[in-house]
Amino acid sequence: MEQKSKLMFASDYQEGAHPSIIKRLSDTNLMATPGYGSDAICASAKERIRRACACPDAMVELLIGGTQTNATVIDALLRSYQGVISADSGHVNVHEAGAIEFGGHKVLALPGKFGKLRAPQIRQYLEDFCNDGNNEHMVMPGMVYISQPTEFGTLYSRKELAAIHAVCREYKIPLYIDGARLAYALASPDNDVSLKDLAVLSDVFYIGGTKCGALFGEAVVVPDPRLIPHFFTIIKQHGALLAKGRLLGIQFDELFRDDLYLDIGKTAVRYAQDIQEALRKAGYELLFDSPTNQVFFIIENSRIPALESEVECSFMEKYDENRTILRLCTSWASSGEAVRRLCGILTRR
Amino acid sequence: MEQKSKLMFASDYQEGAHPSIIKRLSDTNLMATPGYGSDAICASAKERIRRACACPDAMVELLIGGTQTNATVIDALLRSYQGVISADSGHVNVHEAGAIEFGGHKVLALPGKFGKLRAPQIRQYLEDFCNDGNNEHMVMPGMVYISQPTEFGTLYSRKELAAIHAVCREYKIPLYIDGARLAYALASPDNDVSLKDLAVLSDVFYIGGTKCGALFGEAVVVPDPRLIPHFFTIIKQHGALLAKGRLLGIQFDELFRDDLYLDIGKTAVRYAQDIQEALRKAGYELLFDSPTNQVFFIIENSRIPALESEVECSFMEKYDENRTILRLCTSWASSGEAVRRLCGILTRR
Amino acid sequence: MEQKSKLMFASDYQEGAHPSIIKRLSDTNLMATPGYGSDAICASAKERIRRACACPDAMVELLIGGTQTNATVIDALLRSYQGVISADSGHVNVHEAGAIEFGGHKVLALPGKFGKLRAPQIRQYLEDFCNDGNNEHMVMPGMVYISQPTEFGTLYSRKELAAIHAVCREYKIPLYIDGARLAYALASPDNDVSLKDLAVLSDVFYIGGTKCGALFGEAVVVPDPRLIPHFFTIIKQHGALLAKGRLLGIQFDELFRDDLYLDIGKTAVRYAQDIQEALRKAGYELLFDSPTNQVFFIIENSRIPALESEVECSFMEKYDENRTILRLCTSWASSGEAVRRLCGILTRR
Amino acid sequence: MEQKSKLMFASDYQEGAHPSIIKRLSDTNLMATPGYGSDAICASAKERIRRACACPDAMVELLIGGTQTNATVIDALLRSYQGVISADSGHVNVHEAGAIEFGGHKVLALPGKFGKLRAPQIRQYLEDFCNDGNNEHMVMPGMVYISQPTEFGTLYSRKELAAIHAVCREYKIPLYIDGARLAYALASPDNDVSLKDLAVLSDVFYIGGTKCGALFGEAVVVPDPRLIPHFFTIIKQHGALLAKGRLLGIQFDELFRDDLYLDIGKTAVRYAQDIQEALRKAGYELLFDSPTNQVFFIIENSRIPALESEVECSFMEKYDENRTILRLCTSWASSGEAVRRLCGILTRR
Repeated sequence: MEQKSKLMFASDYQEGAHPSIIKRLSDTNLMATPGYGSDAICASAKERIRRACACPDAMVELLIGGTQTNATVIDALLRSYQGVISADSGHVNVHEAGAIEFGGHKVLALPGKFGKLRAPQIRQYLEDFCNDGNNEHMVMPGMVYISQPTEFGTLYSRKELAAIHAVCREYKIPLYIDGARLAYALASPDNDVSLKDLAVLSDVFYIGGTKCGALFGEAVVVPDPRLIPHFFTIIKQHGALLAKGRLLGIQFDELFRDDLYLDIGKTAVRYAQDIQEALRKAGYELLFDSPTNQVFFIIENSRIPALESEVECSFMEKYDENRTILRLCTSWASSGEAVRRLCGILTRR
Repeated sequence: MEQKSKLMFASDYQEGAHPSIIKRLSDTNLMATPGYGSDAICASAKERIRRACACPDAMVELLIGGTQTNATVIDALLRSYQGVISADSGHVNVHEAGAIEFGGHKVLALPGKFGKLRAPQIRQYLEDFCNDGNNEHMVMPGMVYISQPTEFGTLYSRKELAAIHAVCREYKIPLYIDGARLAYALASPDNDVSLKDLAVLSDVFYIGGTKCGALFGEAVVVPDPRLIPHFFTIIKQHGALLAKGRLLGIQFDELFRDDLYLDIGKTAVRYAQDIQEALRKAGYELLFDSPTNQVFFIIENSRIPALESEVECSFMEKYDENRTILRLCTSWASSGEAVRRLCGILTRR
Repeated sequence: MEQKSKLMFASDYQEGAHPSIIKRLSDTNLMATPGYGSDAICASAKERIRRACACPDAMVELLIGGTQTNATVIDALLRSYQGVISADSGHVNVHEAGAIEFGGHKVLALPGKFGKLRAPQIRQYLEDFCNDGNNEHMVMPGMVYISQPTEFGTLYSRKELAAIHAVCREYKIPLYIDGARLAYALASPDNDVSLKDLAVLSDVFYIGGTKCGALFGEAVVVPDPRLIPHFFTIIKQHGALLAKGRLLGIQFDELFRDDLYLDIGKTAVRYAQDIQEALRKAGYELLFDSPTNQVFFIIENSRIPALESEVECSFMEKYDENRTILRLCTSWASSGEAVRRLCGILTRR
Repeated sequence: MEQKSKLMFASDYQEGAHPSIIKRLSDTNLMATPGYGSDAICASAKERIRRACACPDAMVELLIGGTQTNATVIDALLRSYQGVISADSGHVNVHEAGAIEFGGHKVLALPGKFGKLRAPQIRQYLEDFCNDGNNEHMVMPGMVYISQPTEFGTLYSRKELAAIHAVCREYKIPLYIDGARLAYALASPDNDVSLKDLAVLSDVFYIGGTKCGALFGEAVVVPDPRLIPHFFTIIKQHGALLAKGRLLGIQFDELFRDDLYLDIGKTAVRYAQDIQEALRKAGYELLFDSPTNQVFFIIENSRIPALESEVECSFMEKYDENRTILRLCTSWASSGEAVRRLCGILTRR
């Protein structure tokens, strides 16, 4: 029972789902519906998402997990000879076991700043590619992938996003936004990018469920559905089609009832601020001031075992010979008491 | 509310999950566990499966859906230049939107008899391949895929299975069994192949959850784990890794508690017999006498609209110019009353 | 020196190239030209091909071999979720070691008649696909592949070709013609399909060099170049781009100088007729009456060793328990004397 | 005829082949041999290569071009979930249009120094990977790719190569060496790595023909043939099998007769030294002192047009806002007179 006694702040997918989801799953359990998302609950969920994004014509498809969604969408957007531009820290570049390359596509990694790409950097890359006399021998950049919030929990401002979107327009390639933790962006006081903005400033984005209150599920939004013909078949081909599609419908129907999705990340973000405050007070150096639910701090290697005896956290990377970057993660399910205990442990040191 | 008024016999994935699964999901909902199947519930589920299969050293991995499982396992078993032998009606050959080819592998389709391959037919194919002077220019058969029960609901006997397994041994290629509806095989009075037999007579098989009482989930059993090194990474690469892996653990832990999985298909098989009886009585021709939960019968095209106004069933294929093969499917969730109403409707005609 | 003493009729790629090609290779050997086909000789060859096909705007690309060309063109024409319709005997289905599947595409094999598909059969397949309620779970047919002459040496008439082309137009999918042995079709008295016809009745076709007088090389003709954007990059990605592209230019510039390509197959076709005559006279059963340079006949197994002691021929397949189908192949390089000796051997039996 | 008037130093694949190859092609032209490399000339060529490398049991396969060879070998060596470590400037990472990713594999690019990786850098990468708790979610490094000489013309010393090989042994992954320009390494006074060394210090390497005296062709050497079962089929699947395989046999049989391959790069390397001397004299800055046949120098942008009016050279990359790195390339076919004229042009400035 060691797991129970330790504080669990290693990730934001440690618990089940928002209680309303569990209730609805239970209530609808023996209802018979047609499969593969062709049921009424899915229709309702998709309609709620369209409304929340203010794009009434959008195609919305509900997939199961993040890696699967990225691989499927990217494969749908690219021609076989094209690659996807990503920050070097992008989930598609590092932590998807080569799912993008499995689909035949190169990830064209550019150096990110705490997970973020900048518009001029992308423009420069595209311009250099176009000017390179050998570019017919190279992988053609066919789209841009960014994440909001990024893998570091940082945020693109609306202005930054608009600038990246403008570069994509200029070079006629789609912009795709990975919103695995989107609820924590939407809940951040520092955020000025709404769901409606995403629908205008990107070509495809997904609204993360797995880390944001669902058992699993990611809702892909394609504001202009003509962009991806036969998306259903592509999803099936990628093994990403859930037979009992209504399970996804139920979850997103609940998450988008009464704006739950807009609220669900709020405590997590506040708790992350509390944790950052405690870390600062305790003299830890933060990697940067995080606006969302992930906190990165630098710790001397010698102090890690003691901390880890009480708290599950994530190893990020070596900072230098003697120090390490650790990550603490809150979620919609984090309890105030656990956060207070964590802060106590941190400041006690 | 048309859906409610109609009898739903189109498939065996129309309802949610066995109530014990829903209860356990609810009970464990706010428990925090590590992700990706590394939790204690998954460990318990896997151990139960190992025991039920009497293969204590087996690697058990829990995936989400059937197409995904097939694509992942087949890609794991084959070298890049190899193909998979399958019946022409095999799910991998027809209804997976090319997921196997997406992984680079040809499906080597042999004509099946109501979904079944025969050992001599496989041996002949392998022998012909070995004897073909041009075989270095051809796709090398690298494994055999069969399903138990088949896509038609038919069953391999233990003797038939042993014969196929012996051919695979002779030619040193693995045998993989798709058990999407395995509970309905295990529940059939005609069946003589146990879980323990599968573990001895195949190299990899999967125990279907989605159609057999779970919300979703397929348990891949690899009796000798050395057969697939780095399977976890392969699963991840295929987008088949569930972040909250315990959801799969919970479902299989319940399905394999107190032999639930061995019982869960029994009423469905009995009801299918009742439906076949009613069809015969009503003068319909059965495509064959089904031993499991899928019933195939031949109907004049002119009679279809009336039937479909009351019953959801599945179109299988044209039988001839004027007749069609339809499928009726029962499941663990079918109610006796619905079956009685269905039989009434059928015999009334 | 056993090779020399035996008559070599096993294939049509046993010799080098037409002497004018060897001469030109020699004459231009130390000339320095830019690489990858951007030289003046390639430009000339392409222009000659465009003229011969009467399609002045065509994109012409010169690749190296047949399997490579098929894999590259098919991958260029299909979206990732589409498959290619082919006769079951099609080279892409049988003898390319899975090169099409390596690119992620399923070969949708239909039963051929001595290598040929018929328009109604293709229409039926497409119609059935469109009518299948489950087709979103299936591989979408995205193009049709045929060969002229076929792998059996049979020919499509202009009428047959027009009918297939019309079906493709109706279903809005491209028609691609593999012309690996096209010179032998063009040289056949039975043929009524010209290069100009191919340019009108297909969307892409290739003019085979390897088997028709070149050392190697296949010229892909795309009458409407907008059909395949970035074809150069696709060729490179497939490893099909020759650094010293002019070697291909030289060969096709010679083959299309003074209509050489239209004549080069003539003796081969005449010799094949002679061989068929001799076979008939000797009492052999022909598989069918071949109009081009490949002759298929049925021989009792007991007589094969004696024949093979004097003549290299190809095993095609078993005909029945006691008989085999063998193939004899002539080429542009076959000598009259060798053919006479062969006929002598055959009729002596 | 502009091409003729300009000096051509843009690449080392501008001319045809060594005259002895052209002569042999011509002499053997009408000889009939079986296809796909199963002829006596290929056997002879392979035997000569085995002798030159002192590895009598090696499997030698003759492919057509570099990108094709890299894609085929890398795909043969890796399991589907593995990637290949390469310098960021590696041909496989930059100039193969994604051929490696097309086969499903990620290129794991490490920063190179003028094209070279260092053993400690590779070890660090592998060690970090092994220590990363998340590595099951990442692309497993499955082999190391280097080139000798590198894309910059730099050389690995025997000591450096042995160190890299030792790291690969330690981590049980194969080392593959791209020898597209190997003749220029072997001809360099600075080189201490022989063919025999390559056979001992790598697991697979290829001996480049295209840039080293052949019309086309790369000879893959696998000292221990058990490393790649069914290599022939893999070559076919990649569209890399030449029907008239003897054309490759002829070229390598000539290149390895009387040690021609060891000598053929010598004048090119000497001429490159002359050109470097001229550049220095003229006050140009060399990017580095090149030991082989490629010379990189820095030039003010304003001076490029004048130079390019007389000399074809290659754009490498921008050096800074006002300066560019250009490449001049000699080859086995470069003439002393052209080099003298080039040096005159350079020093005149």
